[in-house]
Amino acid sequence: MPDLKPLFSPDSVAIIGASADTTTLRGRTTHYLIAHGYPGRIYPVTRSLPEVFGLRSYPTVAELPEAPDLAVVVVPAAYVVPTLEECGRKGVRAAVVISSGFAEERGEAAQERDRALREVISRFGIVVCGPNSEGLVNPLKPLVATFSPVFHDAAHSLFPESRRSRAIAVSCQSGALTFAFLSRGRPRQLRFTYQASAGNQTCLEAHDYFDWLLDSNGADIFLAYLESIRDPARFRAVADKAAEAGKPMIVAKVGRSEAGRRAAASHTGSLAHSGVIDDAIFRHHGIIRGEDLDHMLDMAAAFAFCKLPRGNRVAVITGSGGSAVWMSDLLTAHGLELPVLEEDLQQRLMALLPSYASAQNPVDGTAQAIHEVGYAKLVEIVRESQRIDTILLIGSLANEATAKQRAEELAAVTGDTDQPIILSTYTTATAAAMAAFAEAGIPCYTSMPSCARAIRALVDYAQFQERRRQPKAASATPPAVRGEVRSALAAAGPVLTEVAAKALLACYGVPRPPEALATSAEEAAAAALQIGPVALKVQSPDITHKTEAGAVALGVSGDAAVREAYQRVMASAKSAHPEASIHGVLVQAMAPPGREVILGITHDATFGPMLMVGLGGIHAEVLRDVAFAPAPIGPQEAQSLLGELKGAALLDGVRGAPPADRAALIELMASLSRFAADHADLIEEIDLNPVIIHAQGQGLTVVDALIVKRPPP
Amino acid sequence: MPDLKPLFSPDSVAIIGASADTTTLRGRTTHYLIAHGYPGRIYPVTRSLPEVFGLRSYPTVAELPEAPDLAVVVVPAAYVVPTLEECGRKGVRAAVVISSGFAEERGEAAQERDRALREVISRFGIVVCGPNSEGLVNPLKPLVATFSPVFHDAAHSLFPESRRSRAIAVSCQSGALTFAFLSRGRPRQLRFTYQASAGNQTCLEAHDYFDWLLDSNGADIFLAYLESIRDPARFRAVADKAAEAGKPMIVAKVGRSEAGRRAAASHTGSLAHSGVIDDAIFRHHGIIRGEDLDHMLDMAAAFAFCKLPRGNRVAVITGSGGSAVWMSDLLTAHGLELPVLEEDLQQRLMALLPSYASAQNPVDGTAQAIHEVGYAKLVEIVRESQRIDTILLIGSLANEATAKQRAEELAAVTGDTDQPIILSTYTTATAAAMAAFAEAGIPCYTSMPSCARAIRALVDYAQFQERRRQPKAASATPPAVRGEVRSALAAAGPVLTEVAAKALLACYGVPRPPEALATSAEEAAAAALQIGPVALKVQSPDITHKTEAGAVALGVSGDAAVREAYQRVMASAKSAHPEASIHGVLVQAMAPPGREVILGITHDATFGPMLMVGLGGIHAEVLRDVAFAPAPIGPQEAQSLLGELKGAALLDGVRGAPPADRAALIELMASLSRFAADHADLIEEIDLNPVIIHAQGQGLTVVDALIVKRPPP
Repeated sequence: MPDLKPLFSPDSVAIIGASADTTTLRGRTTHYLIAHGYPGRIYPVTRSLPEVFGLRSYPTVAELPEAPDLAVVVVPAAYVVPTLEECGRKGVRAAVVISSGFAEERGEAAQERDRALREVISRFGIVVCGPNSEGLVNPLKPLVATFSPVFHDAAHSLFPESRRSRAIAVSCQSGALTFAFLSRGRPRQLRFTYQASAGNQTCLEAHDYFDWLLDSNGADIFLAYLESIRDPARFRAVADKAAEAGKPMIVAKVGRSEAGRRAAASHTGSLAHSGVIDDAIFRHHGIIRGEDLDHMLDMAAAFAFCKLPRGNRVAVITGSGGSAVWMSDLLTAHGLELPVLEEDLQQRLMALLPSYASAQNPVDGTAQAIHEVGYAKLVEIVRESQRIDTILLIGSLANEATAKQRAEELAAVTGDTDQPIILSTYTTATAAAMAAFAEAGIPCYTSMPSCARAIRALVDYAQFQERRRQPKAASATPPAVRGEVRSALAAAGPVLTEVAAKALLACYGVPRPPEALATSAEEAAAAALQIGPVALKVQSPDITHKTEAGAVALGVSGDAAVREAYQRVMASAKSAHPEASIHGVLVQAMAPPGREVILGITHDATFGPMLMVGLGGIHAEVLRDVAFAPAPIGPQEAQSLLGELKGAALLDGVRGAPPADRAALIELMASLSRFAADHADLIEEIDLNPVIIHAQGQGLTVVDALIVKRPPP
Repeated sequence: MPDLKPLFSPDSVAIIGASADTTTLRGRTTHYLIAHGYPGRIYPVTRSLPEVFGLRSYPTVAELPEAPDLAVVVVPAAYVVPTLEECGRKGVRAAVVISSGFAEERGEAAQERDRALREVISRFGIVVCGPNSEGLVNPLKPLVATFSPVFHDAAHSLFPESRRSRAIAVSCQSGALTFAFLSRGRPRQLRFTYQASAGNQTCLEAHDYFDWLLDSNGADIFLAYLESIRDPARFRAVADKAAEAGKPMIVAKVGRSEAGRRAAASHTGSLAHSGVIDDAIFRHHGIIRGEDLDHMLDMAAAFAFCKLPRGNRVAVITGSGGSAVWMSDLLTAHGLELPVLEEDLQQRLMALLPSYASAQNPVDGTAQAIHEVGYAKLVEIVRESQRIDTILLIGSLANEATAKQRAEELAAVTGDTDQPIILSTYTTATAAAMAAFAEAGIPCYTSMPSCARAIRALVDYAQFQERRRQPKAASATPPAVRGEVRSALAAAGPVLTEVAAKALLACYGVPRPPEALATSAEEAAAAALQIGPVALKVQSPDITHKTEAGAVALGVSGDAAVREAYQRVMASAKSAHPEASIHGVLVQAMAPPGREVILGITHDATFGPMLMVGLGGIHAEVLRDVAFAPAPIGPQEAQSLLGELKGAALLDGVRGAPPADRAALIELMASLSRFAADHADLIEEIDLNPVIIHAQGQGLTVVDALIVKRPPP
């Protein structure tokens, strides 16, 4: 990981392509850098002017009096590579390339420029943000190296009125969005430190910036907007590092729609990725998925000011009964609870409130009483409750003077309160009013659902951290087993039949039903005699759809019937696939009844082996009710993954069916995922379909299995 | 419907309980009325002061020099009824009662006050807003009769900078929320006219205000927040009147959660209503459901400035590629389409844009080009597309001066544009910048999902209006049939058996499978001989759970077996329910295979008979995948109701099953709903469960039916 200090906190900056014409992006970039008071040495580089905004300019990088820490490159695409070449020779260590016209542009010329760019970056080992970047901002320096209109008014402080917010870093594959966070978050009293418009992410990806900031303690909360992830392993490692540090990563990953992918391809040259797989990876690593700018800021505001709550129970205190009703619905819809307060606390609250108020929870003080009593006295009582994890105030900040007074009263009591305290206003609010609450450690929300989802995010993150702290079940595969399976997989053909697949899976503890491979009618009959009523299934790596080929017979019993069925399925298989290599017929006990589940592994191009689980039949196929997780997963994550299924209740036994053996299913999920992870390089796909989950304590039956190997690279 | 002019637009106002102390709600109410420049005669009524804010005051209403049009009542609860009594005697025609302590307060004293209040209102025929109201505002007068802090600064205009918005009226069962709309909507350039905090809705409900405003053309868009609806028939009639006028009604109906209902009970004394039934009523009448304040304002802003679009196709024009990608995902998630533009239009766009831009759709002009070219020239090209119904611009309004210039350029071209044009900004925006766009007829959104849901609301409302204009299928029941069924229903006991229920439903065209009622084993065997394999089901109004009582035999064929089954089910039924009156055994053809559906009618306490439809088995029972509509509905609404089911695709034939006979199901839904509506006063519940829908063209089988009558009032 390279040092990003020259990039984010340089002692000297060359602006290459500098201009004094602020109607151009070049001129704006030059102007903002100077106007926002960058304290280091600034070297405009341009052949057109002897000086720019009163600073002496230089015709070339070579002629600069020193090698600047950072080069801001705002020249036409064709000149970018020569410029970086010059920078490299001069000894420049970092560059932000604002110029566009590389991977994001169609056509051979642009792609050739992109190749040359990568080459020059790697040859000189320059740390490069961009190209196609809108620049970098670090208010701590302050460094404003961007043309973003967010910075057009240099009189406007980069920091909010209150400095109490934890530090937030931003990296986006979009310039406009990078600085939109500060534009929108500053009035909400959020304090942004490092902000990088990552552009095409040719050299540095969002997680690279975050990695360095984690090491250098440059931020406490990380926001990213991503169209692609080039190095998924590093991305995941940085996510784990952030989780370990207890610093939330909030990431929007776009391109879920066809129109979105089309737009991404022309924007940063990225092809965005399937949403469900991203969701699975995020869930696994505790990365919080951002739905939109406000959603991300809503969550960031909660993390910026609040402690993590112990649980999901919320008390609402308000003077607006209507807001309380509405908020109750919204909190409930977000899976949060509003327990009725303890009787003695209710009595103490009612002593302060009129007879037509209510103190159950929501505590609706009514407008008059809140006007007279304020919030602080009520908070002092409610925080004593053992039933409450978060305290939510609802009120109006329309009158700034009143708002400030309320905030001051609250500040006197919030210091020693364990619970997060949050405020929702139904009217507009000024930045000054929000700042007063920020000083009391209280984030303000102007939207009720925003407030609900912010609390939900706090609760979820607290639960994730709790889960992380629990000891993981040891589940490494013994090396001998792993080696044996590996050799067998390597030696196998491209498709493994049910018999072959199950033999390997059995080494990882996947149970096999009573079954035997028969190569003659006699063998089949003999096996059936041992097993009871059986299914007969032709085994051939060339026949993946056995039922369609007539190569399956179900519920066969009795010597003659088994022999007849053997002949029949063999004849059908040969007739449907005359060229197929046939290994025999699997004679398998008919599975006892249970709940049908499908399990699978798919190799994702970005993230590798992914476990999929779904309820069988229409649930997976028609209703698309399936859930994914990156392999391997332990039993705890398997358990939580089942909870993601909309039809999860079906496993509990409904309509007279007994509860299914969840424990057996969870064990199977863990084993299968370990198998897939151990041999990720060899496996393209595994299907266990169907798996019948029997009643609690009675295990499961893997009815069919198939492994498809990855084609050699 | 009483005249509300004295309430909303009085020529004289008495403020009863007037005060000059602005730290009290009474004083604030008095002060705001005067400070906001009410132009009529103001009469403070108070015994404490000879004058208030320089106005002569009066000790009693009786001593006023005239009967004022409106009395604003801000006295303690105990004095409200005597005050209204005095007002009534004086000839006051309208009052707004701000005082609390009536239906919303627990305890006998408050309930007694509530009864007395109703009595005095009805005796004098006074039009009353409240009690427990936060007041009334009508900026057209201007009348500001409230203590809401939203109006604390009288220098701040009640109208926005731009007057172009259509007029919006608000009525809420919450004072704070009533005026929150203006607080939040004014910077968004929304123009609010009549606003009533309806309080407990003791006399006037939200729809009463709207009804008068529809008649007097006082508003074009209606916003309401409701905890309860006391007169559902009038509510629905007003909704239809608004739909007829093409004026959208956007309504939040709260109390979906247990905590929300608890809060509502203590707030306005209302018990809120089940969400799914509200949703069904809203869908039926084209009422737009509000999810939260922002959602309602987002939709109101679209209706305030835009024409209705022809369809769901959106073109995005932006300089921020990242916003375009994200917005594409969001639009797609809202069921909106982003078609690729015509090739010739793409070429014309690219002629204005750099090589690394994209003109497919989204049109990503890139920051530089938008900076130079602006939006107007691009809009002029895109609006020629035949593939586009709405044009969405995404940009930054961070720089107010630039924003105003863009808006002026756009204003020059928007006048003759058919499509709605909407702007989404990823940065903050000043009211002045928004005003400039408002003048061009363009609403601005600061949230991307808000923008998507606003466009969705325009599209939905356009579709609803389109559906309204289509001719309704004539489906009145012939009076003879109706009368006959009515007599039979009236004569029947509290529960109708399958045989009895089906006989009545058959009069409305509900098909019956081949079946006969047998009262002996011989009759059963004879019937089965005609029918084929049969089910036998004991018929008794006292046995509603036949299967549990062993009173059903399935798939019986052959003379002996049918006789034996008859004896068996009768014996089981008698043993399980010794006291039951048994009408016989229904001998019914076994239904051919098909997709299982359940249909039902429930009598909703507020809205009367509601049709329910769901897919059978786990879908309805476990996954709660059911949809409701108020009865009666025609085939078109039945069709659209099926679309609400998440598992609707199952009717199309999946996993080898043929497509089900949707037409037959739709006809059954219409017939059943007509039956229920015709006899709503007599029917509590109808269950057709299951109904088997056979393959297309092969109809359906109503396998079981039950009617439960309403208990006499």
